[in-house]
Amino acid sequence: MSTTRLETFADGVFAIAATLLVLTVDVPSDLGNNTLAHELAKQWPAYAGYAISFVTIGIIWVNHHTVLSQLRGADRTFLFINVFFLLCIAFIPFPTRLLATYVRTENGEAAAFTYGVTLTATAIFFNLMWRYAIGGGGRLLRPDADRREVDGITRSYRPGVPMYAGATVVGIFNAEIGAALFGAIALFYVASSSVFGRDDEVVP
Amino acid sequence: MSTTRLETFADGVFAIAATLLVLTVDVPSDLGNNTLAHELAKQWPAYAGYAISFVTIGIIWVNHHTVLSQLRGADRTFLFINVFFLLCIAFIPFPTRLLATYVRTENGEAAAFTYGVTLTATAIFFNLMWRYAIGGGGRLLRPDADRREVDGITRSYRPGVPMYAGATVVGIFNAEIGAALFGAIALFYVASSSVFGRDDEVVP
Amino acid sequence: MSTTRLETFADGVFAIAATLLVLTVDVPSDLGNNTLAHELAKQWPAYAGYAISFVTIGIIWVNHHTVLSQLRGADRTFLFINVFFLLCIAFIPFPTRLLATYVRTENGEAAAFTYGVTLTATAIFFNLMWRYAIGGGGRLLRPDADRREVDGITRSYRPGVPMYAGATVVGIFNAEIGAALFGAIALFYVASSSVFGRDDEVVP
Amino acid sequence: MSTTRLETFADGVFAIAATLLVLTVDVPSDLGNNTLAHELAKQWPAYAGYAISFVTIGIIWVNHHTVLSQLRGADRTFLFINVFFLLCIAFIPFPTRLLATYVRTENGEAAAFTYGVTLTATAIFFNLMWRYAIGGGGRLLRPDADRREVDGITRSYRPGVPMYAGATVVGIFNAEIGAALFGAIALFYVASSSVFGRDDEVVP
Repeated sequence: MSTTRLETFADGVFAIAATLLVLTVDVPSDLGNNTLAHELAKQWPAYAGYAISFVTIGIIWVNHHTVLSQLRGADRTFLFINVFFLLCIAFIPFPTRLLATYVRTENGEAAAFTYGVTLTATAIFFNLMWRYAIGGGGRLLRPDADRREVDGITRSYRPGVPMYAGATVVGIFNAEIGAALFGAIALFYVASSSVFGRDDEVVP
Repeated sequence: MSTTRLETFADGVFAIAATLLVLTVDVPSDLGNNTLAHELAKQWPAYAGYAISFVTIGIIWVNHHTVLSQLRGADRTFLFINVFFLLCIAFIPFPTRLLATYVRTENGEAAAFTYGVTLTATAIFFNLMWRYAIGGGGRLLRPDADRREVDGITRSYRPGVPMYAGATVVGIFNAEIGAALFGAIALFYVASSSVFGRDDEVVP
Repeated sequence: MSTTRLETFADGVFAIAATLLVLTVDVPSDLGNNTLAHELAKQWPAYAGYAISFVTIGIIWVNHHTVLSQLRGADRTFLFINVFFLLCIAFIPFPTRLLATYVRTENGEAAAFTYGVTLTATAIFFNLMWRYAIGGGGRLLRPDADRREVDGITRSYRPGVPMYAGATVVGIFNAEIGAALFGAIALFYVASSSVFGRDDEVVP
Repeated sequence: MSTTRLETFADGVFAIAATLLVLTVDVPSDLGNNTLAHELAKQWPAYAGYAISFVTIGIIWVNHHTVLSQLRGADRTFLFINVFFLLCIAFIPFPTRLLATYVRTENGEAAAFTYGVTLTATAIFFNLMWRYAIGGGGRLLRPDADRREVDGITRSYRPGVPMYAGATVVGIFNAEIGAALFGAIALFYVASSSVFGRDDEVVP
């Protein structure tokens, strides 16, 4: 299969999962004695969760494109790894809402754990996808793929799984610090790839 | 109509139906005396249902592309068969949630039956689509379509309807075994097309 | 603007509106003394509404493609007519759910009226879009557009508004007959364009 | 990265955010002593909010395409500005529902403020995106980009931020006038670009 149709399907899942995150944020329905402004301010974890997960999905989308741009095509094994990878992406709205709801309660750790497991699994499948594509002597690589660039990509994806797994472990002990770490990882990726990144490249 | 725009629309429906499956999984709102961890563990049928339906849609998406790649175009009858086929795909989130909610209750069989009927109808329309395309002396086939490959596709789609219909019948008597069968069918497809499949083909 | 990006956006709205229709169908949450099978059977108007609206959106999608295939491009007026047209398409899940909920109650007529007004407005904007494109001496038509085919399209879109408006008026007096008429219009379109339609054309 | 895949992802977010707006409108579930017609009429702010936000997203979609059509490609900084821009777009369904729910209550001003901040932030990121693309001596501009047209685009985007910020400030004092202003801005854009706009251009 050409990677074109995989991109259409994957971009659809990325875009929908990101947009469905808005369901994380509820319109307050019962104000009690509070003002709406008060209730809106109180649910700031929902806005933070929305933003962190949206940017995380955006980062993964950018990286997914980097992977596909190095490939000459896809075989069925690669497609099914992608299906499992996208299964994780599409799941993200659930732990986001879970974490936003429970992060400041005594049950926050279970929520942070669920969120972390989802992102860690996403990172694992992402790496599996890349490893499969470049394995077997570069079985899916474009014939003109630049070995140095391929190695650079491999290196840049290495920290993903340990970082998410680490934040998950922290989240088991303290949900709020764990949640802050997930936000920090997202910021780190945006900053590093924008500031230190290969910004001169403009592929038309 | 060219198959390109059909692919855009179909991939949209595939991606949205798959991503909407996340609504199968509820954020527990009333914990009672239980911990969140307990409540999250208790709703494992929702995760299983999410995964089985997501992978099933992923498999059908891969097969849908295989069909379209053999065609030179689409006529209106083919388009409308596709509309009915996509109607079934887009419906899948409903029986998934239904089955996840009721599979372990005394009403599980009605839920398994609804799930099975939806997948069986999907398989029927899928086969109808392929039969129509290759019927009438290959009315929609590309002129350079390989007869052996076309026959291989026809053979590989033959077990779909009886397998889903069979699991549906089992589900009428025992919802949990029926549900396990739907999962087994999905695993079987992934395994068979990845391991035994035509993996050498990398279409750029 | 090229029509390509309009197609991407429009196909997105078509696909999402159609897929969101599944939210018309609720998982029964309180069975009372009834079986699940009984409750599922009782909500047949929801399945009917889902199917009628899905097929209706599918028909309009096919026709929208027919229109765009005749055009050489889009100007801003055409784009904004499309935005209003898509606003109607994306609204369809609301009156569908409304009609499914109320069709068999004493308030059915208000629901049928809302459904009918939505479809009639959709048909009006669709015709406006086509009229604008072919107006001014064919301001957006491809230079090689076949005048006979263009006239055929114009003729085939003429009955849409009166048919939907007529069913709406009937729905004001009897919701169930009105709803049946909306289903009949959808069936009529599928049957006429498949059976009597220009089926020989296979545009690659 | 080519702008093609950015367009696919962005058009997905535009289309989904616009279509999810339909969730702004609730099917009345408890009629009390009122008729359904009465309840449907009473929730007119939901219809107005749906229409205003849908048209606003449509306008931004048209402008987003205008921007991309001037560019030769995208770098990572541009992509991440787009991610933040799309984060704002995807958020719009929340303040729309909030404003529709509260506009006529004593809490309307907090809702109008939230709506206004979202649209103002969207406009800021939109301008940032354009400024970045044309900055640094036109770092992302197509080599054949017409300087006069580029300047025209820059001028036409200038009023966006002050207009939305102004309506937001008004909304802090009077929610209903603020909401009317958001509607007026949308109408103004549609009217000005259709009537006074560069309508002769038909890009194939």
